Amino acid sequence: MSVSTSRVLQEFAARLGKGKVFLELPQRRMYRYDGIAVGETPAIVVLPETTQDVVEAVQLAQATGLPLVPRGAASGLSGGAVPTEESIVLCFTRMTRLELDPDRRLAIAQPGVVTAWISERAKPLGLTYPPDPASLRTSTLGGNLAENAGGPMCFKKGVTGDYVVELECVDAWGQVHRLRREAYDLPGLLIGSEGTLGIITEATLRLTPIPPHTRTLMAVFGEVGQAAEAVSRAIAAGAVPSKLEFMDQGCIRAVEDYLHMGLPVEAAALLLVDTDGDDPQIVEEELSWVAEACRECGGEVRVARDPQEAEQLWRARRSVSPALGRIRPKRLNEDIAVPRSTLPEVVRSIEALGRAYGFPLVQFGHIGDGNLHPNVMFDPESDDEDKVWEMLHEVARVALRHGGVLSGEHGIGLMKRDFMTEALDRESLEALWAIKRALDPAGRLNPGKVLPDLVSP
Amino acid sequence: MSVSTSRVLQEFAARLGKGKVFLELPQRRMYRYDGIAVGETPAIVVLPETTQDVVEAVQLAQATGLPLVPRGAASGLSGGAVPTEESIVLCFTRMTRLELDPDRRLAIAQPGVVTAWISERAKPLGLTYPPDPASLRTSTLGGNLAENAGGPMCFKKGVTGDYVVELECVDAWGQVHRLRREAYDLPGLLIGSEGTLGIITEATLRLTPIPPHTRTLMAVFGEVGQAAEAVSRAIAAGAVPSKLEFMDQGCIRAVEDYLHMGLPVEAAALLLVDTDGDDPQIVEEELSWVAEACRECGGEVRVARDPQEAEQLWRARRSVSPALGRIRPKRLNEDIAVPRSTLPEVVRSIEALGRAYGFPLVQFGHIGDGNLHPNVMFDPESDDEDKVWEMLHEVARVALRHGGVLSGEHGIGLMKRDFMTEALDRESLEALWAIKRALDPAGRLNPGKVLPDLVSP
Ligand SMILES: Cc1cc2nc3c(=O)[nH]c(=O)nc-3n(C[C@H](O)[C@H](O)[C@H](O)COP(=O)(O)OP(=O)(O)OC[C@H]3O[C@@H](n4cnc5c(N)ncnc54)[C@H](O)[C@@H]3O)c2cc1C
Ligand SMILES: Cc1cc2nc3c(=O)[nH]c(=O)nc-3n(C[C@H](O)[C@H](O)[C@H](O)COP(=O)(O)OP(=O)(O)OC[C@H]3O[C@@H](n4cnc5c(N)ncnc54)[C@H](O)[C@@H]3O)c2cc1C
Repeated sequence: MSVSTSRVLQEFAARLGKGKVFLELPQRRMYRYDGIAVGETPAIVVLPETTQDVVEAVQLAQATGLPLVPRGAASGLSGGAVPTEESIVLCFTRMTRLELDPDRRLAIAQPGVVTAWISERAKPLGLTYPPDPASLRTSTLGGNLAENAGGPMCFKKGVTGDYVVELECVDAWGQVHRLRREAYDLPGLLIGSEGTLGIITEATLRLTPIPPHTRTLMAVFGEVGQAAEAVSRAIAAGAVPSKLEFMDQGCIRAVEDYLHMGLPVEAAALLLVDTDGDDPQIVEEELSWVAEACRECGGEVRVARDPQEAEQLWRARRSVSPALGRIRPKRLNEDIAVPRSTLPEVVRSIEALGRAYGFPLVQFGHIGDGNLHPNVMFDPESDDEDKVWEMLHEVARVALRHGGVLSGEHGIGLMKRDFMTEALDRESLEALWAIKRALDPAGRLNPGKVLPDLVSP
Repeated sequence: MSVSTSRVLQEFAARLGKGKVFLELPQRRMYRYDGIAVGETPAIVVLPETTQDVVEAVQLAQATGLPLVPRGAASGLSGGAVPTEESIVLCFTRMTRLELDPDRRLAIAQPGVVTAWISERAKPLGLTYPPDPASLRTSTLGGNLAENAGGPMCFKKGVTGDYVVELECVDAWGQVHRLRREAYDLPGLLIGSEGTLGIITEATLRLTPIPPHTRTLMAVFGEVGQAAEAVSRAIAAGAVPSKLEFMDQGCIRAVEDYLHMGLPVEAAALLLVDTDGDDPQIVEEELSWVAEACRECGGEVRVARDPQEAEQLWRARRSVSPALGRIRPKRLNEDIAVPRSTLPEVVRSIEALGRAYGFPLVQFGHIGDGNLHPNVMFDPESDDEDKVWEMLHEVARVALRHGGVLSGEHGIGLMKRDFMTEALDRESLEALWAIKRALDPAGRLNPGKVLPDLVSP
């Protein structure tokens, strides 16, 4: 960094207030990574408390030429919040204002609000905020919006973007906008753009009534195809499960080793299903359609008798992360989405890749949307990490070959940027670049993410 | 038109096939207008049958410098399909291929498909396509997508864009793209962009199961505020009506004069409400919550005993258009959306405007979303049409003053383009223009729509 840049950063820190800025190396080094990757140490970390602070950070970027990297809780799994060069990291964990308007069923939230807080605050009012990434106790709303995060409930209730009424954002020139979903859907364009088109400083979100009744079942199958088929049949019978999760054998075994809850380690696939609604009878009936579909497909079904047992069954799903952590010190979590009908073949092809590369691999995901998370476990001390990445590339190719997409919910980020040239044709990539250049001509917003470099043909 | 342009058009017609092109004045004059406005006579009308025909039309625009105006059924109510200068009108009424994939619950449709056909074709499969603009028997899917059309069901089931999985489109350079809702949401950007950012040539749409049970009620109120309050209370009680329509006194009287079905002409407001679902009991119960809320707010409720009576009640709503046609030869249909809590005041303010300007005026709309259609009736022979437009401008201002938006569902088009400078601040308009310039730098796609000219400050 030049001496003059360094002086500008010092002056900025003095002006904004020392407490809102980190300039010391040990502090800055904490803001290099997210849930999956490690990058460059930022030149400065700014912790804005107001939209005006964000505007000033953008002006700092203009003055110094340093790029801006927005960051929430850094739970992202595609490297979106990781600096790829010397940058200004803009960390939103202090912008945590959250107001509820129960009459209009709205929440007005700053980006640093932790996802789970919204439903917690809405609960006493009989309301809830449905998008439920498994990371909801740590992830922030800003990160959820930037990734358009989903969760177990997304099949019935949709993803983060489906709940956005209005966004406040700061553009690459430091202008503040309040954008509604009218004329051109600019909020929709920002949602899922991973901080590369604008910085989100506030969101107005739709809340929905809490469904008073929920029922839960677990089903185990001798074959992955049976589980996929059961899901399709249940849906065809009219069931719209409010949660719908799949775990493969590797995943079942890992959880059983960890929890000793009596899961059948010989089973090839496990489904966890919730139905919910206003009427206990119809919720029950919907669950019975799912149970029937599972049994018809050769599944063994266990219906939770009460909320305690349901909670117990869902513990299996929530324990996947810690359980896998015991197998190898590190893992990379892939995230693809494929047509549900191709799932058996996709799961098998990915298993074969795991065997070929010699890495332990488990698969789970929000099966209603065909969203699958193949996780590769390895030891950075003894394993060749390049091989892991090579394998993940092959996993992405399996998805594309089956008519799927590169990212179900974790985004493209840094990690899948290079795969984009295989997923989209050149014309579509150029259309994406045209949007990027229109909203960020200087390339100041989260460079090196989402869009691959286009080499002239 | 220059002689050379004229020759290029002739050659184009010969190449594409005479049947796909109109060059004669009487034919061309038929493509000047939509449901609300009349514009310039197009230089040529192209009726593409394939995506390749569309590509050739774009190339024709490039070769001649003539702008392109996409057009569906011309039922639009904001002048979107109206040429503002000598243009190539691209009329989609022959691109009507429609394929259903019941297993994946998808419809793959060309833009000329009439909205109602989709549900008609899906019905024998137990499926339906929920977006239901009142124009659904004439409007096309292309027009619905370009306007992001809503309908009575939008409160519960969402609008057109909520059902889009994938779009095929042709860009301003004649490149064909297949766009999914990943990375930057380009389909979402095209939806609602009124043909100004790209031309839609195919859509993959989500279908949903037909809810087997529906119940209907009508409620009348002495005051508009009571109706608005009843809706809020019913929703607070947990009801999510599948249809929810409001009519004011002027509207009730017009329909009664027309149908003589015994509507209470002294009532100030009328609600028509459907609930639907899988379980007859819960559908019934949901309707009873609505009935109770209506009664608590002073409404008089009539619950339809059977589908025939329900059909009868809904006739009142469907007859609004023809009924109003009898009052004055012409009417202009406004389209605003306001927070539901402001509805009584908004309705009153707009009534006052009608009195002040001396035009008969009625109001109706999808009240669940606060979507309101003030309709001004006039006689072009004797009334001053400028006054009508002036009044509509005031109506838009009422919406903006109450935190509402310029367009609930009919789009900005030609008609509300100039109001945009009052609805959005300059920075946001510049952001919209940045998108427009990125995707259509030569301004060839439907010029003069949506975006107001920005005069340098
Ligand atoms: C155990 C575990 C389980 C998970 N389960 C799920 C799941 O079920 N579903 C799912 O979708 N994801 C899941 N994730 C991934 C991750 O939690 C989500 O992507 C989440 O949305 C990231 O939020 P964050 O606050 O941590 O964002 P970060 O990781 O800090 O950032 C993510 C992206 O958002 C951008 N960003 C952050 N704030 C802003 C802002 N204010 N304006 C503009 N851009 C911004 C960043 O630049 C970056 O590109 C999981 C992660 C873990 C570790
Ligand atoms: C009686 C009546 C009732 C109505 N009720 C409703 C209602 O309940 N809800 C509602 O939302 N609207 C309603 N409308 C308005 C209108 O029907 C809708 O806007 C409809 O979506 C227009 O469809 P269309 O095919 O007629 O489009 P057109 O009027 O032909 O065109 C509309 C816009 O779409 C663009 N366009 C058309 N095809 C394409 C394409 N393939 N690619 C890109 N752009 C394209 C045009 O350029 C134009 O900007 C109503 C209209 C009438 C007359």
